[in-house]
Amino acid sequence: MPCVYEYSRPALTVDCVVFGFDGGDLQVLLIRRGLEPFKDRWALPGGFVHLDETLDEAARRELAEETGLREVFLEQLHTFGAVERDPRERVVSVAYFALVKPTAATAATDAAEAEWFPVASIPPLAFDHAEIFAAALARLRGKLRYDPLGFELLPPKFTLSQLQGLYEAVLGTALDKRNFRKKVLGFDLLVPLNEKHRDGAHRPAQLFRFDPAKYRRLKKQGFLFEL
Amino acid sequence: MPCVYEYSRPALTVDCVVFGFDGGDLQVLLIRRGLEPFKDRWALPGGFVHLDETLDEAARRELAEETGLREVFLEQLHTFGAVERDPRERVVSVAYFALVKPTAATAATDAAEAEWFPVASIPPLAFDHAEIFAAALARLRGKLRYDPLGFELLPPKFTLSQLQGLYEAVLGTALDKRNFRKKVLGFDLLVPLNEKHRDGAHRPAQLFRFDPAKYRRLKKQGFLFEL
Repeated sequence: MPCVYEYSRPALTVDCVVFGFDGGDLQVLLIRRGLEPFKDRWALPGGFVHLDETLDEAARRELAEETGLREVFLEQLHTFGAVERDPRERVVSVAYFALVKPTAATAATDAAEAEWFPVASIPPLAFDHAEIFAAALARLRGKLRYDPLGFELLPPKFTLSQLQGLYEAVLGTALDKRNFRKKVLGFDLLVPLNEKHRDGAHRPAQLFRFDPAKYRRLKKQGFLFEL
Repeated sequence: MPCVYEYSRPALTVDCVVFGFDGGDLQVLLIRRGLEPFKDRWALPGGFVHLDETLDEAARRELAEETGLREVFLEQLHTFGAVERDPRERVVSVAYFALVKPTAATAATDAAEAEWFPVASIPPLAFDHAEIFAAALARLRGKLRYDPLGFELLPPKFTLSQLQGLYEAVLGTALDKRNFRKKVLGFDLLVPLNEKHRDGAHRPAQLFRFDPAKYRRLKKQGFLFEL
């Protein structure tokens, strides 16, 4: 049923930059477009906002529909409103960034046209999605310095090597092992578990979990993770 | 001329939380609504996004039209999309926060229905503007810790007392003078000028300006202003 308004208005969409970590690379989840414009080009999952749902609900619905992902960490990033960003008509898009634990990430691989790409080698993207992706990556890198968001990308139990690997993958730089451990443990955010991680020929490694109560306290007083 | 669309779409607006500092209180600029809904209630300056302007342009245009302010520091804050936030119909609003130097702030007082209020005593606001205001204040407080944005609220030349007064007004807490000076000067962000500020009976105070090049370097390497 067509809708009539007194004044013209932009269309409103949501787009999601979904990050995952496979233990080696930081990855982003893309979908292949089936329709014009940019048919067959890779794009961020997203779509139009319905009148009866909030922006967060729209982002979660589109993510579930297009990638099969549910129960992810989702945060609003920025709203993109360049006049010519969509060749069809004026479209304003509220962008989100999402962080996915490895356990949930496998669901997405079932979605027909969804695929994970290492952030260092993503294909050309539709619309202004390369710009949205760059903003999301910058936000993730920035937040990792004063907000241990990275835990959202790790399994519930992890080793310090896994944590360091994640920081290295996000920041795109190698970190000194001894220095990293000292700093991470200095924040008193990690709870050592009575379990070890066994990985082939390696020496069993101490497993940790993240302490949400300590995290909230630390966040309130402000901190900076200098690397 | 009425507009016809295949699917219904939300209306899109921008709203601006404008902060100023008068040397004593942190203040916010509000306008009194002339029309229903919320007629005569105070509200954030803002309005509908036109098809041929970006979101930033819409925010600057509305600010100029409703408050007379131009050339302000403006940053996108968050997009608010609760389903029932406007009693008339679905309206999604892209919120901005703006910082105004005292020299520019006086322009706004010429606007018919615009008025500055100390943030500690703002009147009841229209729509969800109290929520938007709270989010802007939280952002300003948070950013002051790792981004010396506060300089946008000071005159180009300022004393350490004025800078401390601003931090106290934004954070809503008294700070130890000796400690504050030591920390601020420790960042090597301020350039002492060959000028003193004379204020009645007080001893003439050293004037400083902010060094943008040093600021950019510091921001890149990350820092936290612990108070």
